[in-house]
Amino acid sequence: MKQACELANKSIERGGGPFGCVIVNTSTQETVGKGHNMVTIHNDPTLHAEMVAIKDACHTLQTFDLSGCTLYTSCEPCPMCLSAIYWAKITTVYYGNTKHDAANIGFDDQFIYEEFGKPIEERKIKMTQICQETAINSFQKWANKDDKIPY
Amino acid sequence: MKQACELANKSIERGGGPFGCVIVNTSTQETVGKGHNMVTIHNDPTLHAEMVAIKDACHTLQTFDLSGCTLYTSCEPCPMCLSAIYWAKITTVYYGNTKHDAANIGFDDQFIYEEFGKPIEERKIKMTQICQETAINSFQKWANKDDKIPY
Repeated sequence: MKQACELANKSIERGGGPFGCVIVNTSTQETVGKGHNMVTIHNDPTLHAEMVAIKDACHTLQTFDLSGCTLYTSCEPCPMCLSAIYWAKITTVYYGNTKHDAANIGFDDQFIYEEFGKPIEERKIKMTQICQETAINSFQKWANKDDKIPY
Repeated sequence: MKQACELANKSIERGGGPFGCVIVNTSTQETVGKGHNMVTIHNDPTLHAEMVAIKDACHTLQTFDLSGCTLYTSCEPCPMCLSAIYWAKITTVYYGNTKHDAANIGFDDQFIYEEFGKPIEERKIKMTQICQETAINSFQKWANKDDKIPY
């Protein structure tokens, strides 16, 4: 966690947001991935510290499955990062600051959690289903594909 | 949407999951970003089609703010991608298949939405707060920084 906090400080010096993250192999305690926020540095709203660290760990281990890893993040993950942690199959997370601390300095993700609780038609994002008859074709192809890599 | 569905088909041919996405400038209807699922191709669990398209659009427009853009995705976004869409400030989304269609071919994200509704201590991911007294330092630095780029 000390290293994750150092990365958060380094991020500020480099022009990023104040967030850092480290991923370790739970058995060996070896660091396999790390990262800090790069949203404004790389003009990429998806590059939160946890996302960068997950990418780095997957690159190190050459897998999209990080089960057996522990994630240390300087702040409680936002819904995007928490979802990514589920997809990466990480089951243990340590965090420093809470989402309330983050909200206090202008990073408020509570509205996203609230949006998720609403029916699609009441959300701020206008979401409309179209062309399902075309879209379903790729799902049928996937279902019938014998040599697919499940994930 | 036709292009997003074509990308989903192309993704299967290339060894990725059956998902495609296109982002257009809402005013000009010009395509500014596109992508397909690359989770297994790049060993990166964060590379869903929408994430790839958001990165591509941000690269094209050299900004982390995609307000004024419309996103077309071959399938209803998962919570990671939907969160990223909020962070990118996209307000209009068209989707082809539903999350129920996705669940039918083995891509089930309902458990993540259910996890979000639970208190931290009841979630499948074990989340523990530690070292807040160290972590808060970077937040104080951020709050006091005069030349920060807000996002």
